[in-house]
Amino acid sequence: MRLSRYFLPVLKEDPKEAQIVSHRLMLRAGMIKQQAAGIYSWLPLGLKVLRRIEQIVHEEQQRAGHIPLLMPTLQSADLWRESGRYDDYGEEMLRIKDRHKRDLLYGPTNEEMVTDIFRSHVNSYKDLPLTLYHIQWKFRDEIRPRFGVMRGREFLMKDGYNFDLTKEDALHAYNRHLVSYLRTYERMGLQAIPMRADGGPIGGDYTHEFLVLAETGESEVFYDSQITDLTFGDRQIDYDDVEQCQAVLEEFTSRYARTDETHDQALFDQIPEDRRRSARGIEVGQIFYFGTKYSEPMGATVVGPDGSRVPVHMGSHGIGVSRLLGAIIEASHDDKGIIWPEGVTPFHVGIVNLKQGDVSTDSACEAIYAELKTRGLDPLYDDRDERAGAKFASMDLIGLPWRVTVGPRGLANNKVELTNRRTGESEEMSPQEAVDRLQQIYLPVLNAGAPAAAK
Amino acid sequence: MRLSRYFLPVLKEDPKEAQIVSHRLMLRAGMIKQQAAGIYSWLPLGLKVLRRIEQIVHEEQQRAGHIPLLMPTLQSADLWRESGRYDDYGEEMLRIKDRHKRDLLYGPTNEEMVTDIFRSHVNSYKDLPLTLYHIQWKFRDEIRPRFGVMRGREFLMKDGYNFDLTKEDALHAYNRHLVSYLRTYERMGLQAIPMRADGGPIGGDYTHEFLVLAETGESEVFYDSQITDLTFGDRQIDYDDVEQCQAVLEEFTSRYARTDETHDQALFDQIPEDRRRSARGIEVGQIFYFGTKYSEPMGATVVGPDGSRVPVHMGSHGIGVSRLLGAIIEASHDDKGIIWPEGVTPFHVGIVNLKQGDVSTDSACEAIYAELKTRGLDPLYDDRDERAGAKFASMDLIGLPWRVTVGPRGLANNKVELTNRRTGESEEMSPQEAVDRLQQIYLPVLNAGAPAAAK
Repeated sequence: MRLSRYFLPVLKEDPKEAQIVSHRLMLRAGMIKQQAAGIYSWLPLGLKVLRRIEQIVHEEQQRAGHIPLLMPTLQSADLWRESGRYDDYGEEMLRIKDRHKRDLLYGPTNEEMVTDIFRSHVNSYKDLPLTLYHIQWKFRDEIRPRFGVMRGREFLMKDGYNFDLTKEDALHAYNRHLVSYLRTYERMGLQAIPMRADGGPIGGDYTHEFLVLAETGESEVFYDSQITDLTFGDRQIDYDDVEQCQAVLEEFTSRYARTDETHDQALFDQIPEDRRRSARGIEVGQIFYFGTKYSEPMGATVVGPDGSRVPVHMGSHGIGVSRLLGAIIEASHDDKGIIWPEGVTPFHVGIVNLKQGDVSTDSACEAIYAELKTRGLDPLYDDRDERAGAKFASMDLIGLPWRVTVGPRGLANNKVELTNRRTGESEEMSPQEAVDRLQQIYLPVLNAGAPAAAK
Repeated sequence: MRLSRYFLPVLKEDPKEAQIVSHRLMLRAGMIKQQAAGIYSWLPLGLKVLRRIEQIVHEEQQRAGHIPLLMPTLQSADLWRESGRYDDYGEEMLRIKDRHKRDLLYGPTNEEMVTDIFRSHVNSYKDLPLTLYHIQWKFRDEIRPRFGVMRGREFLMKDGYNFDLTKEDALHAYNRHLVSYLRTYERMGLQAIPMRADGGPIGGDYTHEFLVLAETGESEVFYDSQITDLTFGDRQIDYDDVEQCQAVLEEFTSRYARTDETHDQALFDQIPEDRRRSARGIEVGQIFYFGTKYSEPMGATVVGPDGSRVPVHMGSHGIGVSRLLGAIIEASHDDKGIIWPEGVTPFHVGIVNLKQGDVSTDSACEAIYAELKTRGLDPLYDDRDERAGAKFASMDLIGLPWRVTVGPRGLANNKVELTNRRTGESEEMSPQEAVDRLQQIYLPVLNAGAPAAAK
């Protein structure tokens, strides 16, 4: 993309309404615009990151064998009366009357609707296991929306639902989700720690929250420092392998890690003192097993192997897609702006032309731009007629991990500068070397989405 | 995808509620499920087609230089009070009160919001031309929702908005949209004819509707039969070239083609009688130029070259993304089911194993399945233990354009059968030849999304 043709309204001043750094930086970098309390437009740069995150979530869900569908944003109140949650949910549910005075609501979650889809179409245990998920806009009418997309009212969430014949099968689905979430967050450059959590209004005994450590986190968390040494890495997982998934769950949840809601000081004190940590965390996902809580009242049953009807065992599993942008920025920024991890950056590299209008720098930039695109990369070329300082400041603010700087002095020796946003280190090399290096850097990112061996 | 692991709830019986063929076939093929009047879940197969259509729209919009953003589904009523449309819009607008009794609405369109974004961030004519678009869920509270996704209440639409300094520039944006729409629909296998239309509640003197001819269309249309001979084909267009875009507009709109709203019998009668046609049409898009209708009351101005502030000239341009599924099916089906054009088919090819469990047919199917995926194709492998007749009926119903049939008798001579869904013609060939042929068939589809030469 050429910046002269893009819509990137960066702000020079810190917006007053933003209390936390991610909100401030998203506004300054021209990523979002508030349209009403807790309701945002995603400007082009913000949308690009949102789509990268969404894409990673889709790829990892489908790698785990989960099937995408899309439920609507509005739901009939009648479904929620069946489960008993229409009255329970309180003021956070946005209730709506249509022109015929029928009760609708803007879905805050989809257990009822997906259970309705299941009961309408699935009849036999032979169609199990089944996990359906969608990524759709939700609404929760927060009394005090704040912190930008971290606590918005209209927000994008991935929510998935497993249907299994037995509790044992459903717990495998639970484990499968835990494994896929570990992969998902790592691809976004995040360490998200699964912590034992509280069921809340969804219900359920088995539940883990995934938390990203950050000073501005809304939850207080307590953990054994050994847990932050764990990484999932690029290990191959067979998601059908019950033992393999169980082993990952045990590896990542056997050390103490809890939010304040489930914290147990006596247990915590058993950890050697030098490994005890308390910190703040941002919740970016949660998984639940809740058995027959919805299938029983709503009649979601299958004919089992013995010919009798049994309610299915279910769980639900969420990732806060829009909130992740805030969490990533909270975990990765400096005083100049955002520092995107390579997995989610809106553009892979910025090209800064130090002398726009100069025939040789223009043509060198054009060549680099075209060659990067040929290699499958997505560059942002700052082709505006602006001072170098302003161009650098914009690039630092929007946080692309790599920058190629092209000026007449370097070009005289066939050199451009490749700069790492995180370390600030620059290296001179030929344009060709810069393109090769960038391709090498992004190879793991571009290949990460490749499907596992045909299933 | 293996059918044994997919969620494809096809219906054997014709659903009673469906009055038109696309609605009936979408229900029978397990593509959608109604959740409330005019509100649908998109089951996995339906979502796949929806995403293919969305992807084509994105690619063609971006090829034309238009910039994607994403505005929220809910909007503040205050914005609509500024334009005066809050009171005008009537009962089709879904009005909502939040917990603090503030007036919100579920956006039926986005002129006001995008104008607000523009006025907040753009100040100079140097930032023009600018066209912003999004693909987002909309809601219109139709009094009698019907015909499935053709006249739903919650529906997916692409709406784009151009901002230009002069009327002349804005009319180029209008032409650019017309050209991009012609390309868009042709990639979906549709002939959509631009017809002179009526401005309606959006307003504006310049407006064309795009109509797909189909017996079940809601509009009566009148046209010169020469217009159906026009195709856009694979001509290269420079979207910045004013004359080139104007020439396409003239080519496609100089012959008589109008809906009943703007029909002029006297003009129509001037066409030679053998070329006069009247038929039914389904509206799948509309483009508007409306000048300063929103920019003036809402204060969307820029500083012009002479230093004075002027309101920008605007237009809006819509494609009915979810409705297109219905339109495509209305235009392309037979009594066995849907016939997807290759550009939008949910899976590129179906593989039917005639003897599931037989070692040699199973392994031949596996090899074909894996090889198709390696070539970048997306096959659906019917690996269920079902009768051949049932497998054929399902494949015909869901309408994949090509089928590979693998059975022990053919395999004894290293033959499989490649069948064209539209013509019903089958040809025997080796598995290798079938894979090669399919790759060849889909080459234009897979390449159609490739970006034009770097801009």
